[in-house]
Amino acid sequence: MARKVVIVGGGAAGLGAAGGAKAADPANKVVVYTQFEDVAYSPCGIPYVHGKEIPDFQALFLADKQSYVDAGIDVRYETTVRSIDTAAKKIRVEGEGEVSYDSLVVATGFDYKDPGVAGAGLGGLYYVKNIRAAMEWDKVLDTVKKAVIVEASALGLEMVTALAHRGIETHLIDPHPWALGELCDPDIAAPVQESWAEMGVTMHWNTELKGFLDNGKGHVRGVATSNGEIACDLVVVATHKVPNNALAMAAGVTAGSTGGVVIDDHMRTSARDVWAAGDVCEIPHGLGGLPLQGLTGSHAYAQGKVAGFNAGGGDRAYQSVYVPWGMVAGKWMIGGVALGEVAAGALGIPHVVGRATGISRARYYPGVKQVRVKLLAEPGTLRLIGAQMVGGEGIKERADFLGVAVRKGLTLHDLATMENVYSPPIGALNEPIAVAAQNGVAEARKGA
Amino acid sequence: MARKVVIVGGGAAGLGAAGGAKAADPANKVVVYTQFEDVAYSPCGIPYVHGKEIPDFQALFLADKQSYVDAGIDVRYETTVRSIDTAAKKIRVEGEGEVSYDSLVVATGFDYKDPGVAGAGLGGLYYVKNIRAAMEWDKVLDTVKKAVIVEASALGLEMVTALAHRGIETHLIDPHPWALGELCDPDIAAPVQESWAEMGVTMHWNTELKGFLDNGKGHVRGVATSNGEIACDLVVVATHKVPNNALAMAAGVTAGSTGGVVIDDHMRTSARDVWAAGDVCEIPHGLGGLPLQGLTGSHAYAQGKVAGFNAGGGDRAYQSVYVPWGMVAGKWMIGGVALGEVAAGALGIPHVVGRATGISRARYYPGVKQVRVKLLAEPGTLRLIGAQMVGGEGIKERADFLGVAVRKGLTLHDLATMENVYSPPIGALNEPIAVAAQNGVAEARKGA
Ligand SMILES: Cc1cc2nc3c(=O)[nH]c(=O)nc-3n(C[C@H](O)[C@H](O)[C@H](O)COP(=O)(O)OP(=O)(O)OC[C@H]3O[C@@H](n4cnc5c(N)ncnc54)[C@H](O)[C@@H]3O)c2cc1C
Ligand SMILES: Cc1cc2nc3c(=O)[nH]c(=O)nc-3n(C[C@H](O)[C@H](O)[C@H](O)COP(=O)(O)OP(=O)(O)OC[C@H]3O[C@@H](n4cnc5c(N)ncnc54)[C@H](O)[C@@H]3O)c2cc1C
Repeated sequence: MARKVVIVGGGAAGLGAAGGAKAADPANKVVVYTQFEDVAYSPCGIPYVHGKEIPDFQALFLADKQSYVDAGIDVRYETTVRSIDTAAKKIRVEGEGEVSYDSLVVATGFDYKDPGVAGAGLGGLYYVKNIRAAMEWDKVLDTVKKAVIVEASALGLEMVTALAHRGIETHLIDPHPWALGELCDPDIAAPVQESWAEMGVTMHWNTELKGFLDNGKGHVRGVATSNGEIACDLVVVATHKVPNNALAMAAGVTAGSTGGVVIDDHMRTSARDVWAAGDVCEIPHGLGGLPLQGLTGSHAYAQGKVAGFNAGGGDRAYQSVYVPWGMVAGKWMIGGVALGEVAAGALGIPHVVGRATGISRARYYPGVKQVRVKLLAEPGTLRLIGAQMVGGEGIKERADFLGVAVRKGLTLHDLATMENVYSPPIGALNEPIAVAAQNGVAEARKGA
Repeated sequence: MARKVVIVGGGAAGLGAAGGAKAADPANKVVVYTQFEDVAYSPCGIPYVHGKEIPDFQALFLADKQSYVDAGIDVRYETTVRSIDTAAKKIRVEGEGEVSYDSLVVATGFDYKDPGVAGAGLGGLYYVKNIRAAMEWDKVLDTVKKAVIVEASALGLEMVTALAHRGIETHLIDPHPWALGELCDPDIAAPVQESWAEMGVTMHWNTELKGFLDNGKGHVRGVATSNGEIACDLVVVATHKVPNNALAMAAGVTAGSTGGVVIDDHMRTSARDVWAAGDVCEIPHGLGGLPLQGLTGSHAYAQGKVAGFNAGGGDRAYQSVYVPWGMVAGKWMIGGVALGEVAAGALGIPHVVGRATGISRARYYPGVKQVRVKLLAEPGTLRLIGAQMVGGEGIKERADFLGVAVRKGLTLHDLATMENVYSPPIGALNEPIAVAAQNGVAEARKGA
């Protein structure tokens, strides 16, 4: 029986849900609401246009509006959903009034955490998200001499790299002692930070934001920090992501300790016929079930597909997450999965560590890059509980692999004895993952 | 108790064994015999020097002779071992006479299969192996206008690509209908062959070698084939690898159906205190236990380490193999693990196939490349039994991953729900492995 599936949100989760609802039953009526002028563009590409790695914003549009019409997906642009009545199964839409649904998917995404200091309303504060806004900001960047990035979050790292690459004097402030302080270990962050220094970036660690300073005309002239003032013409506010949960909370949908909407393994919320997906949710971590929020666009998309499929009458489960991650920062790629040493230490989780520094191709082959791998395992069983890497090549593929390895309960023994491709232009005699695992096994023997 | 460990062979397996024997007990006396002038060079790099991707042969030497002296490994260069007396635990060495051992590791490697046709003794026939010989051949290549490569083996593919890259008119003959006919599926080979055609290579498929033609002065002037003659100044004989088993066979060591020395899970041969490793052995395939020979340098090295460790008094097992493989051919990377469709079909193994064509970075990010993935799984359980890939990036890392996935019994369900890193410069929203697995699951549902 065909359903009317209404989706609030036109980001990765919302569009994944729209596709999922159609996949469950092509006869389903699918309506997507978004506050933005567009769907189906890649916000993830914005930092690279700013950094001039990508020539223009047009490239970031993935599909034109007609393709959604053709797919039978009714997208309502620049249209805000004001409230949800889960009892009556209706939403109130700006300019449309009441709209009923059979199934609702909440995919309202994330906001940058409010920095909670004075001056947040000034001009010159850039929250990177909407592509139309980014196009305007890109023109502004041509006039910027000196910029401050607030927080070494994933987006912060991308924006530091981009602005430095563009030739802007770039300062980074962050309350932690190193980049991605909650996710990444200091030995992994170190090469990135060295490369930023080479690129002319000034890093201010252990530094809290205290306020945005007004130039007297309502525009930012600098930031106040726990370590003094930094003058600048532009601030990129790259604080942590928080769930944009207001709409769901007002409707009485249950949120968890992170502020994310709580979902079950089918992405169902506490409310009848209401699903949620993407950055508005919290998701249990595969190791121990700790709730996580603010995952990645690929998680949002995959969750959206599951939520939409179920909302459309299908039946598909979503798994716990181990969150492989990876990115380019400075002159390096960094990445990993699940726990690093800092996180394991902070959580009091005992662990054995195996490390190796290897190479991505034969030592003599042009383009060869360093690849450093660190593996964490549970003492005794040597079951993998996390990995961190920094290198010049092949980090994303290794992070994906190790994500599956953690999920499937593979051990250091499994990785220590793995076979590997050796071919001078594409792989070295010794795979760094295997060597790190061998070293971890040896370390565990010593400890035992 | 320290042992005298004698190793016959200075290739990847022999040197792995030398390191393994020292790791088991640094007091072990380790002697390595090789017929060559050098050890510790990478034969795998030779095709790339010929192709001018690598500027010179010096780069291929990995360590100098002194470093072996320093490590306490006694390498006897240009010294042939003539026979083994396993009862007396002695070998007969050219120029040294009888030499006793406590433990012996046979690592005599591979030969190219004798093409078995007339003219095999002519000048201008190049069997690529020894680096000193390769240096001489490289000078010859400067004078070569037209070359024939005999067989589209892994080395054949590398040499075709290298000689075409060097600007030599290159012909390839092979009895199969496409490249790497026994390993690789035709859909995976097709893009490689297209790119060779663009590079000016002439391919002669379904073509048997009938003889090498004499120019009247003892030098090759062309090859006779089942499809006529091809004139040339040089022939690269890249026939399949066969185990160089003569020494072991003469000593009564048991060889298997492939001609490879039979070993147990500790790389022990049938003879007391004799181990073997590398291309001289046959190894059971993880799926079904079929014996395989002629694996890769990385297998040889890993086996050598195990054999040497055990020969030196240690205790370490070697696993069955699934043989992830990968290489650059033409303008592409190809690779895979375990069974492709052709092999599964030939062996009568039922299978479900999942395919996907994806990309290596965001669609709009410079340097993005296509990545095609094909996964084979056992019907019903959907347990992975093989994979094949062709693409422009990340093939080796994915082959390594899928090698572990096959060994650990992972299913298409596991891969269909894998998490993946999405970051525009290093990975796309959709991981091609995950999409291929999703398509395989859907295919299996249809079939059921
Ligand atoms: C600059 C940038 C770079 C990024 N880089 C990466 C990357 O490299 N890799 C990666 O994996 N991810 C990346 N992301 C993705 C990001 O981190 C999130 O994980 C992802 O955007 C979450 O998707 P979502 O659909 O849950 O939410 P969002 O993308 O936040 O989308 C929310 C949607 O909800 C709509 N909405 C909200 N409230 C309402 C309402 N009341 N009425 C109607 N519509 C509403 C919005 O208009 C929007 O369409 C990046 C994001 C940005 C902005
Ligand atoms: C040109 C080329 C390219 C290659 N490319 C790759 C690649 O890209 N990836 C990969 O994984 N592998 C590659 N290989 C490796 C190859 O395919 C084999 O798997 C590998 O060389 C096997 O190592 P091995 O030590 O078993 O034997 P071999 O390398 O064959 O070494 C045999 C050793 O035994 C010695 N020997 C033999 N008989 C005697 C005797 N009677 N007395 C004394 N010494 C003896 C020889 O002198 C030699 O040192 C390549 C090899 C070559 C030649």
